[in-house]
Amino acid sequence: MAAEAGNEAREVAKLAELVVGGRASSRSELASLTGLPRSTVSRRVEHLLRIGLLVESGDGPSSGGRRPVLITINPAAGVVLSAYLGATHSRIAIADLSGQIEAEQSWKADIGDGPDRVLAGLVDRLLSLLDQHGRSPADVRAIGIGVPGPVEFATGTVVQPPIMPGWDGLAVPAILREHFHAPVLVDNDVNIMALGEYWFRGCHDEQLLFVKVGTGIGCGIITNGLVHRGADGAAGDIGHVRVAGHDDVICVCGNSSCLEAVASGSAIARQLAAEGLDVRYARDVVRLGQAGDPRVVRHVRVAGERIGEVLASMVNFYNPSQIVLGGSVAALRDDLLAGIRGVVYQRAVPLATRRLTIEACASGERAGVLGGAILAAQNALGPEQVARWLRAGTVSRMAR
Amino acid sequence: MAAEAGNEAREVAKLAELVVGGRASSRSELASLTGLPRSTVSRRVEHLLRIGLLVESGDGPSSGGRRPVLITINPAAGVVLSAYLGATHSRIAIADLSGQIEAEQSWKADIGDGPDRVLAGLVDRLLSLLDQHGRSPADVRAIGIGVPGPVEFATGTVVQPPIMPGWDGLAVPAILREHFHAPVLVDNDVNIMALGEYWFRGCHDEQLLFVKVGTGIGCGIITNGLVHRGADGAAGDIGHVRVAGHDDVICVCGNSSCLEAVASGSAIARQLAAEGLDVRYARDVVRLGQAGDPRVVRHVRVAGERIGEVLASMVNFYNPSQIVLGGSVAALRDDLLAGIRGVVYQRAVPLATRRLTIEACASGERAGVLGGAILAAQNALGPEQVARWLRAGTVSRMAR
Repeated sequence: MAAEAGNEAREVAKLAELVVGGRASSRSELASLTGLPRSTVSRRVEHLLRIGLLVESGDGPSSGGRRPVLITINPAAGVVLSAYLGATHSRIAIADLSGQIEAEQSWKADIGDGPDRVLAGLVDRLLSLLDQHGRSPADVRAIGIGVPGPVEFATGTVVQPPIMPGWDGLAVPAILREHFHAPVLVDNDVNIMALGEYWFRGCHDEQLLFVKVGTGIGCGIITNGLVHRGADGAAGDIGHVRVAGHDDVICVCGNSSCLEAVASGSAIARQLAAEGLDVRYARDVVRLGQAGDPRVVRHVRVAGERIGEVLASMVNFYNPSQIVLGGSVAALRDDLLAGIRGVVYQRAVPLATRRLTIEACASGERAGVLGGAILAAQNALGPEQVARWLRAGTVSRMAR
Repeated sequence: MAAEAGNEAREVAKLAELVVGGRASSRSELASLTGLPRSTVSRRVEHLLRIGLLVESGDGPSSGGRRPVLITINPAAGVVLSAYLGATHSRIAIADLSGQIEAEQSWKADIGDGPDRVLAGLVDRLLSLLDQHGRSPADVRAIGIGVPGPVEFATGTVVQPPIMPGWDGLAVPAILREHFHAPVLVDNDVNIMALGEYWFRGCHDEQLLFVKVGTGIGCGIITNGLVHRGADGAAGDIGHVRVAGHDDVICVCGNSSCLEAVASGSAIARQLAAEGLDVRYARDVVRLGQAGDPRVVRHVRVAGERIGEVLASMVNFYNPSQIVLGGSVAALRDDLLAGIRGVVYQRAVPLATRRLTIEACASGERAGVLGGAILAAQNALGPEQVARWLRAGTVSRMAR
């Protein structure tokens, strides 16, 4: 019986997803997309109308017979929240249950201030953004958060983050759930940026690597619309892959010759400072690079080549169809891309680069917040959540 | 209408897969596993009985009410064929539609003899194995083949294989289909070995990397029971990843310092020959290593460390839960594993190695042929194939 209830929730969740994702807008479209009998679809749709997730919205065009009754998502069914916590700035958004953003906000924030201060600030801003848009915490159906460090996705626990002092072992969902009674999904910032870019580009069935080059270096992996997180949620951590010829460079992780210690924005800043330039942060590198300083351009190009060496290995191993470059240093895209492309096309096996594209991020600084909204929306309409709504008999009154 | 027919085939294929995979043996189990209404399940099962894919096999135990009628796969529904073409030996098998092997055979064969001779020999042996076991080519529902080189999986075309002279651009399925009227799936040998080992181990929801160290070096990637092939079927080609400090070593691919040119069985053989030992092939290395020659042991250990460097990068990137070592040189497993483990645990990020196991292949020399059978079985019961059977009204008489 429990198994049957689970199956019903899966079926209902699938139907809801098709309507919310814009792929079906009537019972007959749902029946034809899922192969379910028309009677089953009608019963499930009644259920979704009754709990308030969907609403009927008038008649659609006739295709010969009776006009179909259109069904759409009920705006009153709620929203999802998204948060992107970067090393030096943060961004939040309210989105509908399909992940479409309705309002967003960004501000400067140092992740090094520690979890108490950063999360308190985040909660305040989320509450005030909700309030400004006529929504309350009770309207929130799921929250997607990206942080700049490794996360055990199943529990939302930050694990040994190199640039997040005080966050090690912290389960972020518990803190957010003091204020919101909704599932909280926490992921590495690069994973959600990858997800945001994938949806922004309208990808389907593609394999995308999102490479973030900023203060650090990381990579998000998307296969068939989902983040590949690996066994421990650690996938994509290319920043600590060893690059040849740099055994004297010690990384924050304790190993030597990590890609991040050689080719990240802060690594380039260190290299330039050693040459006597007044450069300290990744943003200084970007500023001087944009002004065309040839020393900076040379270092960025070399950093691109080092990143290209690591990506050539990943292209051989994973054979993605797209590599997208994001992060603050990607503002110097021409030099960075030239360095990366040169090495990837030289070093990777020919079959794996036949159709490979290597481009700059199209969704810009919004990649993370877009991805957090998609992650939250994917969860808000998941079978577990839908089963909970079916049991409660309503979307709006959550079981606390 | 066409879409509905496609959906029906998908639903029927799913039901068939559950019965063939041993997860359901009655209509009520199928209904509860799929969440489909009992009436739909009964209609679909009737269809599967009528075309001859399933048969009723008596009554099962009662769980209170009427005894359920058991349904199983119809042995008369046919078989799948599997072939593993290695660099120096080949192996074939007949399996039932669940991929369980019924008969197999192996023989020495040099892939360098070229496609005409190798494939003619393969077809002869497949036909005679079928004949010996009272089966005819008309009983074959799918064929899974692994070859030691890169393959474009969608077309079964071999692409620029380094150790398969004469095979470049060859579409293998066309040749097999002169003799068998069934789908022919061709994949890289390492991919099918990975699939075979995954099923042999009874894995579920795990992420397994199968690393083959023989004449060359390659890697198969399994996520959730399926091979990850990448955008061009080129995924897993770690043999041509660059390793540091070997710029003077030229690889067969035309690049320098590829892992395969430094740490494969033939690379170790070259290194030993340069030290004056009478060693030419990977098998010579294994023979001397098993006899305990300390020079061989040292070179194998160092090769393990080089392989470990590349795998540490892949662990950071992909975060698998299991790495399995196969191929002929894996016979020297203790030394090779020690080298690999030492470097992986030192170089990969701690989160990604928390639960990682690195072990020798458990399915041994049969990994490839087991995987070929699973690949063929996964396809034989796929929606496309099932749709064809539904149209023809029978499993046994294929549309030619």
